[in-house]
Amino acid sequence: MRFLVVGVGAIGGAYLAFLSKAGHEAFGLVKKGRKLDRIRVSGIWGEFEIPVRTIDDVNGLPWKPDLIIISVKSYDTEKALEQVKPVVGENTFLMNAQNGYGNYEKSAELFGEDRVILARVIFGSRVVSAGEIEITVCADDVVIGNPAGLIDENFLKNLAEVFTKSGIPTRYDREVYKYLWDKIIYNCALNPLGALLEANYGMLAQNPHTREIMDRIIDEVFEVAEKAGIESFWKSSEEYKKVFYERLIPPTSAHYPSMLADIKKGKTEIDALNGAIWKLGRKHGIDTPTNELITKLVKAKEEFNRTGLK
Amino acid sequence: MRFLVVGVGAIGGAYLAFLSKAGHEAFGLVKKGRKLDRIRVSGIWGEFEIPVRTIDDVNGLPWKPDLIIISVKSYDTEKALEQVKPVVGENTFLMNAQNGYGNYEKSAELFGEDRVILARVIFGSRVVSAGEIEITVCADDVVIGNPAGLIDENFLKNLAEVFTKSGIPTRYDREVYKYLWDKIIYNCALNPLGALLEANYGMLAQNPHTREIMDRIIDEVFEVAEKAGIESFWKSSEEYKKVFYERLIPPTSAHYPSMLADIKKGKTEIDALNGAIWKLGRKHGIDTPTNELITKLVKAKEEFNRTGLK
Repeated sequence: MRFLVVGVGAIGGAYLAFLSKAGHEAFGLVKKGRKLDRIRVSGIWGEFEIPVRTIDDVNGLPWKPDLIIISVKSYDTEKALEQVKPVVGENTFLMNAQNGYGNYEKSAELFGEDRVILARVIFGSRVVSAGEIEITVCADDVVIGNPAGLIDENFLKNLAEVFTKSGIPTRYDREVYKYLWDKIIYNCALNPLGALLEANYGMLAQNPHTREIMDRIIDEVFEVAEKAGIESFWKSSEEYKKVFYERLIPPTSAHYPSMLADIKKGKTEIDALNGAIWKLGRKHGIDTPTNELITKLVKAKEEFNRTGLK
Repeated sequence: MRFLVVGVGAIGGAYLAFLSKAGHEAFGLVKKGRKLDRIRVSGIWGEFEIPVRTIDDVNGLPWKPDLIIISVKSYDTEKALEQVKPVVGENTFLMNAQNGYGNYEKSAELFGEDRVILARVIFGSRVVSAGEIEITVCADDVVIGNPAGLIDENFLKNLAEVFTKSGIPTRYDREVYKYLWDKIIYNCALNPLGALLEANYGMLAQNPHTREIMDRIIDEVFEVAEKAGIESFWKSSEEYKKVFYERLIPPTSAHYPSMLADIKKGKTEIDALNGAIWKLGRKHGIDTPTNELITKLVKAKEEFNRTGLK
């Protein structure tokens, strides 16, 4: 199979490295002047260094890819989709391997629901330095699927097999959207508070004030999801909160959200998390004062850090 | 006149130093082991060093004071009022020279509305080191008065004269409560956001996100005040906001709130500001989601810094 990986950061870098190592034809699309000719991988999935091919212009691609993996940050999704348009052929599929709400939706709107695969990525990876990534943790397989149910299941199962054999454990599940949504709820509750207060997940869950705020965030997410017709694995916000505090938080209590590093750099994925909930709520006539205020605080702090006014 | 100054910090230290220098009988009540025998003053009102008398137990006071000046932080008001009970004589008045809502109210409840003077202090002072304070800025006279109108105006005018002659410009105004409330609105809008985002007043007013948050805070404060029967100088929230952004912010745009230093030390006066608005709103059946969430965020950050969990 021929792959184009758009955005060679922590996640995209992992895809490019593992696919290349397994002998697949793969290119990475990088920003101008950011070309790499090898990636060094360390961490829980082993250590290796592998030559890779990257381009900073899709016109440099020698073929139309079978699969385009979108792994840019959410705020760059629209730009990435525009960029790859010229190389999307009749048989090209896209796969959003990103966080948050809105990435799959944007891809599906532009290329059709029957061409877009959604991946719920829940392994952790970080860029140690240019061309060097570390796989830090793996909570579960990557889950892939087509939310609209319009892509042949055997094709998706084979694709999962290709990734798994390449070294990225992956399975197909028709309920992929629920998996993604699960991660969205979790990230909406923890990421912005961790970033604003420089607190880890355990601190946020233990402190009565942040716990109340997270409860509100989760309640609002559930209210919006219900109104928007988005299904989740949970019967109610209360059921989710029980699992959240009792099962999900404890093993990750020492973890700080990556949004903390992002906010310091002046740009976060808040618009694909709490900002998306706020926007979706507005669309459906639902007030989300907590998600709204949290979004504004994160955006303000991003801007203060970005402009260096501080 | 005989004065007892309770809390010899930035403001109490100024009162103790200037009253002592003017030859008044004055004692400072300090925390155990924090006695001082002199205060050094610098800044806009001149430089001097003056011997002072401090006690860490009211039983050490040789007389019943004519005026007890309460200048502890708002979260210590109740404790301070308990402490001074034994030395409150028939002719003793109290004066709250503090920030925020609730200090005068607590004093009046305990000692009677006819015994408590309210002071709106709007000069800036900071503790440089133990026994050393700097007067940094003076926006206006201290305004003193009795909100209930139950204390003789001539007595209050004379008292203002005593302070002014001692070096702390002070005037009597029967509308002192409106002056205090003005400062409360201003501090509710700016202090917690400045502390949470490490931003100065100009940044907060320029950034569209923090500006929207401040607008909401101010709207909620006005709604609560109206319902609670608290009068202000302003016809409406809109009128105040215009003055706030156009006249009040510009000359102080480079200023960071002292709550920023306080939050780092793990204790702020949030309960006498946004927390008091939230509480007063609850009492009157009014939702104040913005003040509530901001209060919780500040309290969480305080606790994270205090416990050193971070």
